[in-house]
Amino acid sequence: MTKIQKKYQDYVATMQKRADVDYAIGLLSWDKETYMPDKGARFRSQQVATLSGISHEIFTDKKLGKLLADLNDKAGKLDKRQAKNVKLSLKEYERSTKLSKEFVIKKSQAISKAYHAWVEARKANDFKVYKKELSAVVDICREEAELIGYKDHPYDALLDLYEPDAKTKDLTILFKDVREQLVGFVKELKEKSQVKDDFLYKKYDKDKQWDFGLKLLKNMGYDFKAGRQDLSEHPFTINFSPEDVRVTTRVDENDFMNMTWSCIHEGGHALYEQGLPSDQYGLPLGAYISLGIHESQSRLWENNVGRSLPYWKAHYKGLKKQFPKNLGAVSTKKFYKAINKIQPNLIRTEADELHYHFHVLIRFEIEKGLMEGSLKVDNLEEIWNAKYKEYLGVKVPDAKHGILQDIHWSHGSIGYFPTYSLGSFYAAQFFQQAEKEIPNLLKEIENGNTQPLLDWLRENTHKHGRYYNAEELCKKITGEKLNFKYFMDYARKKFGGIYGV
Amino acid sequence: MTKIQKKYQDYVATMQKRADVDYAIGLLSWDKETYMPDKGARFRSQQVATLSGISHEIFTDKKLGKLLADLNDKAGKLDKRQAKNVKLSLKEYERSTKLSKEFVIKKSQAISKAYHAWVEARKANDFKVYKKELSAVVDICREEAELIGYKDHPYDALLDLYEPDAKTKDLTILFKDVREQLVGFVKELKEKSQVKDDFLYKKYDKDKQWDFGLKLLKNMGYDFKAGRQDLSEHPFTINFSPEDVRVTTRVDENDFMNMTWSCIHEGGHALYEQGLPSDQYGLPLGAYISLGIHESQSRLWENNVGRSLPYWKAHYKGLKKQFPKNLGAVSTKKFYKAINKIQPNLIRTEADELHYHFHVLIRFEIEKGLMEGSLKVDNLEEIWNAKYKEYLGVKVPDAKHGILQDIHWSHGSIGYFPTYSLGSFYAAQFFQQAEKEIPNLLKEIENGNTQPLLDWLRENTHKHGRYYNAEELCKKITGEKLNFKYFMDYARKKFGGIYGV
Repeated sequence: MTKIQKKYQDYVATMQKRADVDYAIGLLSWDKETYMPDKGARFRSQQVATLSGISHEIFTDKKLGKLLADLNDKAGKLDKRQAKNVKLSLKEYERSTKLSKEFVIKKSQAISKAYHAWVEARKANDFKVYKKELSAVVDICREEAELIGYKDHPYDALLDLYEPDAKTKDLTILFKDVREQLVGFVKELKEKSQVKDDFLYKKYDKDKQWDFGLKLLKNMGYDFKAGRQDLSEHPFTINFSPEDVRVTTRVDENDFMNMTWSCIHEGGHALYEQGLPSDQYGLPLGAYISLGIHESQSRLWENNVGRSLPYWKAHYKGLKKQFPKNLGAVSTKKFYKAINKIQPNLIRTEADELHYHFHVLIRFEIEKGLMEGSLKVDNLEEIWNAKYKEYLGVKVPDAKHGILQDIHWSHGSIGYFPTYSLGSFYAAQFFQQAEKEIPNLLKEIENGNTQPLLDWLRENTHKHGRYYNAEELCKKITGEKLNFKYFMDYARKKFGGIYGV
Repeated sequence: MTKIQKKYQDYVATMQKRADVDYAIGLLSWDKETYMPDKGARFRSQQVATLSGISHEIFTDKKLGKLLADLNDKAGKLDKRQAKNVKLSLKEYERSTKLSKEFVIKKSQAISKAYHAWVEARKANDFKVYKKELSAVVDICREEAELIGYKDHPYDALLDLYEPDAKTKDLTILFKDVREQLVGFVKELKEKSQVKDDFLYKKYDKDKQWDFGLKLLKNMGYDFKAGRQDLSEHPFTINFSPEDVRVTTRVDENDFMNMTWSCIHEGGHALYEQGLPSDQYGLPLGAYISLGIHESQSRLWENNVGRSLPYWKAHYKGLKKQFPKNLGAVSTKKFYKAINKIQPNLIRTEADELHYHFHVLIRFEIEKGLMEGSLKVDNLEEIWNAKYKEYLGVKVPDAKHGILQDIHWSHGSIGYFPTYSLGSFYAAQFFQQAEKEIPNLLKEIENGNTQPLLDWLRENTHKHGRYYNAEELCKKITGEKLNFKYFMDYARKKFGGIYGV
């Protein structure tokens, strides 16, 4: 082995050691949400904190920094995948060295306080209870942006954590498109008569729902030998290697689709993780690109596939057989329309496929403003409510149904929200490309065969890990960077069809 | 805070850090046996290995050694529980420093080879396949004993790992008693007519078994808010703090009692762990005393309580109601006799309450001989088979039903087996004391109330953690050290009654 290859192996060993610790933390978290008995919580928090500290120590060790710098200097002697790993790890390492231990502690204390204040504010249904602590989080995030550094906009430094290389400038253009194009289109839909969906909210037996969800997951190609589904309060996907990727769901007896969308959505996330290269375990090239690309996989399966007519031509018959009382008189077409009902609402997580992006738009504008300093936490509730009135046409009745609905800011996660919309927009652009490249894709889906689609995603996205960033991947797959046009085309065709616009 | 108290807190922090890592390893292991999908195994092993290495690094850090030595020198300034923690940790630390890194690696390689050879030998049903590797393990264990050091007997150095402060000399006397007193008694029983137990092996619905097991656990006082039961191939108890202590069981449709004994046995282990003081988390005083004392808790519940007539006077009615077809015609007395059937057998884990100790006796004699060098692995199968003929009167048909049945030696665990018998003997001695001290204990059990017994165990054993060693605890509870007499009294009374001896 050459000297440089020996060094590379040292780097790999350190990264894998860190991954082993991180995945152990992952299991501690999975267990907490699924099987842990109540009283286990106290020591579990301590165990997670200890392991997080150890993971941090491993990654911020100066020896690793030196190794990464050395390897990066001699990147020409590495193969290009190795060189990319080194480059990406060095970027992460450098980011971590820019924050002092004191700053990290200060931030985690501010977050802890903000989270508790958020919980209390929700109980009191009063934004005032949370204002001071949220302000502190915003200040810390602005300070973090300065410490990390940025070229154009402080928000860039935060976005980079969730969506590497994303820029405020580009997102501003993107969300301007959302505002200009989507608001108008949704208004057109609103003028048409509403679809009926009452049959979705009858009583659906929980065990039968569970079995149906498993069938859908299996049909998508989710590998149950490398994963499993369990129940949890909030659905999530978590992985401990590409060979152990788990999903959770919830089952609501009076809302059948809740379970269905969570299965397909988390299934989409899980297929991505199961498709990552296991020989790159612990390295950037063994990991997902960004939250936006992760979400593109879940949204593509959930919306472009799961909420399509061909998909239910394949699966509706089986579903009807399970629930003849509720669905016996409902045609496939009627069912398809019902699951695509468009209606403005107050809560982001309950929004339909189109209104969802107004919720994100509002958060994007607010976060950007807070980071620039053009908005202040003090009158944020009024700003929030005004935007909901303007974009969604709804009146926010109270803080719980408004500004207090999301946990993100209380966790210090500023810059996270835009990735949700990016996911849908990437999904639309990728899916139209898949339709071009996969022979008879819609026909295959109609026949219950999504394997060609999965193969295409594996080949074009999953297998590369983080070799490309989001923009590079998008160009590689579709020949151009993210373009909101594809989402609008999709929306106009689908919802225009359903509502007769 | 005084300087010495500050040092003590540093020691506590290090021990808790190690405990956090160890309990994360515990969860990785629990998950592996319960819910992990098949393909998860590969990276899981690596994750466990990494965390084990980290735990080892934390504990063998020279700074900790220095801290422990300092604290031990000034133990007079600590309170007596603190001083005991320091003393016990120092003992463990010193043991760990006596083994070089090279030796630890050599041992783990020998064990890995031996385990694989054992698996292969079982497949081939041929002891020869395993001989060489087992010899290597025995040699390593002898070398370990020399490195660790001992006063009287090399076996002492190994016993100490599982049963701190146990001595070969004492065990030799104990097992001489077993041989002399138990062999004769069992012969007497054998001359009497056998009890009937065929109704235990009819078809018992698995779900009903599961529910019945949970009921028994609950009735014992097992706290389901600080634990849970799951299924696994081999039942076990595992804890991640005293506030999260989990048990597993297996359910065999054609062997009802299999599930029942595993529930009560693991429940006994779990009650001990749930009763340990959580303010001593990570410290010796927050841990169990020895495997023998741990087993005393499980065996006390399983045999002295669970296999008693009063216990089934409380629970048989409910059981019968669940399985009227199988048990409708079976009286409580008949059931009680059936579950206490005595019969020589070949496999330790399937042995009855009395023959079990012959199995252990044989392993004790062999281990002692191997450690002294008076026995060799080469002709161990002949020795094994001869002892089974002599003590149990059974002919071993092949290696799988003989010398290849246990995994222990292939894991390098020499000195573990005696703790199983110690558990039962301590249990008998503790239980006769409980009968003296708890008013109407048997009557309470008959009424389904084991709370007074649990309170007594909590007060006399659990709450002390490792403050006393096994011998000290035994003297404290019963006024004398372990005495085989109590087990024989119990055996004569119970089985004499059942078989009419």
